[in-house]
Amino acid sequence: MKGESDFIDALRRRVDTGTRGRGDAENTVSPRLPVTVSSSLVTGIGDDAAVFGSTAGKETVITADLLVEDIDFRRTTTPPYLLGHKALAVSLSDIAAMGARPLWSMISIGVPEDIWQTDFVERLYDGVLDLANRYGVQLIGGDTSRTTENIVIDSIVTGEATAGMSVLRTGARAGEQIFVTGSLGAAAAGLRLIERGAHLAEQNLGDEDSQKLDHILLRQLRPEPRVGWGIVLGEERLATSMIDLSDGLSSDLNRLCTASGVGAIIDSALLPIDERVTELCGRRALDPLQLALHGGEDFELLFTVKPADAPRLPRKVDGVGIKCIGTIGSASEGVTISEGPRTWELKPGGWKHF
Amino acid sequence: MKGESDFIDALRRRVDTGTRGRGDAENTVSPRLPVTVSSSLVTGIGDDAAVFGSTAGKETVITADLLVEDIDFRRTTTPPYLLGHKALAVSLSDIAAMGARPLWSMISIGVPEDIWQTDFVERLYDGVLDLANRYGVQLIGGDTSRTTENIVIDSIVTGEATAGMSVLRTGARAGEQIFVTGSLGAAAAGLRLIERGAHLAEQNLGDEDSQKLDHILLRQLRPEPRVGWGIVLGEERLATSMIDLSDGLSSDLNRLCTASGVGAIIDSALLPIDERVTELCGRRALDPLQLALHGGEDFELLFTVKPADAPRLPRKVDGVGIKCIGTIGSASEGVTISEGPRTWELKPGGWKHF
Repeated sequence: MKGESDFIDALRRRVDTGTRGRGDAENTVSPRLPVTVSSSLVTGIGDDAAVFGSTAGKETVITADLLVEDIDFRRTTTPPYLLGHKALAVSLSDIAAMGARPLWSMISIGVPEDIWQTDFVERLYDGVLDLANRYGVQLIGGDTSRTTENIVIDSIVTGEATAGMSVLRTGARAGEQIFVTGSLGAAAAGLRLIERGAHLAEQNLGDEDSQKLDHILLRQLRPEPRVGWGIVLGEERLATSMIDLSDGLSSDLNRLCTASGVGAIIDSALLPIDERVTELCGRRALDPLQLALHGGEDFELLFTVKPADAPRLPRKVDGVGIKCIGTIGSASEGVTISEGPRTWELKPGGWKHF
Repeated sequence: MKGESDFIDALRRRVDTGTRGRGDAENTVSPRLPVTVSSSLVTGIGDDAAVFGSTAGKETVITADLLVEDIDFRRTTTPPYLLGHKALAVSLSDIAAMGARPLWSMISIGVPEDIWQTDFVERLYDGVLDLANRYGVQLIGGDTSRTTENIVIDSIVTGEATAGMSVLRTGARAGEQIFVTGSLGAAAAGLRLIERGAHLAEQNLGDEDSQKLDHILLRQLRPEPRVGWGIVLGEERLATSMIDLSDGLSSDLNRLCTASGVGAIIDSALLPIDERVTELCGRRALDPLQLALHGGEDFELLFTVKPADAPRLPRKVDGVGIKCIGTIGSASEGVTISEGPRTWELKPGGWKHF
């Protein structure tokens, strides 16, 4: 069995050694004109987004996210408006995780003929554009193609950071504090409930339980990227490393620690588990802690901060708070979680495509 | 029936009016920090690629091309190495059509589980990386996903041009000369022959006919983007407008004329029809002129030049020549083709997804 992350690691090693940076024109065909390229690579494969520098004191950050029907979403349970929202949201989340400001969006979309003949694609773009407008992001291109059966969407977003201030996964150091934005577990809970037949209320019934249910379902169907937090943490040099929680805290924290060459200890009592998950899911035999640790798709930001910088952190950005959940340690200590007096290794348990 | 180009036009109009340029932060959520964005949009939806400016005297050009199995290629007739080559080639061609220099590549790929367990994806990246290396382009990211059945590839390339020197589709003016690079018709002939069961020779049989056949098949399976010509035409300010021939000369010339608000007359006797197409296809009941006009996927560049600048054009770049095929006229004259004493309207007859 071949794993996705092993494949990506192998590809990164190959690209690092196999190709050259800018300006090495000897091996290339025919530039013929003086190479006056101003770009240089900051980071490529292996972070939330790639970063290349320009000479104007800015660097460009770029990411792509592929969503495939029946793997990443189901047509029957995802209205097209929300699918468009989510396609853009996952890429905005990657840009936020680099501490960058999103600017431009491209959407490549493939749909079968029967879907093309409905208003599905227009509604999907409604969702893309409404979210784009909220963050001042402009749709500038993409591609459309026919498919034989399934819908596919590739969402590309480019953003900008001050040169040298993109926040990579590699910057965490022992002794730093680990923070997450917002709350955990609701997106995964929403997926489980949708798979059991739950759906958004057609109209607001007003009772408390259906409001909680809608909240949980919308965390799955309409994730809110932490764009404001990303910009603040990058521009104010507050985060030393950052990743977005797309595959699950356990997987993404391990990824960040591996990239930084460090370990971590987090305290389960400090995890900001969504209180509506605790209230509703306990009754439905879903374990809130497992959802928060391994569930994925919360699209919160996980980041590390030097203890001396912690007092400078704003309490909220766009109404979203943060929580300190643990401390970075040495690589030899591994990635662990404590629950009361006991401590376990926190193994990656999140989503894998392969 | 809804057409692809109508849809894209509608989307462009909506984006042009519905969103704002950079710096209009009032409607956006929480920038909270001063907006010091250096980017501004040069052109968005509706050209070969989108262009946004940066302050360093450079502009960034970006394009995405989605290839879908059983629509854009067949697994049985396209070896993975050549599929990787083609995925990157079509995007490099878009960058060339902007007069820009390609720099960075991202590949998003979705494959079913059974393909993932073979070396298909590695061979595909071999094809991507070999072509990327030839032009000094570096692979910096993308996404991988599982699909239920079909392979999809989204190829994203970003490039760079001197500020204000990207070559748009909108710049053609009456009286200018129309040129194409290379030769026409072989890619479409190759597709027709593959559909009839032709395949690349396992080993070179040496006879002239099988060499010609391989040439034609490779124009379909391994298109060569005119990267060198793109850079020369852009940097030397030779082309006033440009488009790559992906859907067919008739469709792409009409597209360029519509964007520029002009007409055109081309002379069928001047078209650089691939001579091997003329030799082989006549015998197989394929009309070389029809293939050259409507066939598509030649990935040659079609561009316009002021008469005074024509003497400055190099005769060849990377061994590839150019041919003047006609003249830009006024919009009221339409887009026409002459064959001896007769002149017809040249209607778009190329590839459409919808």
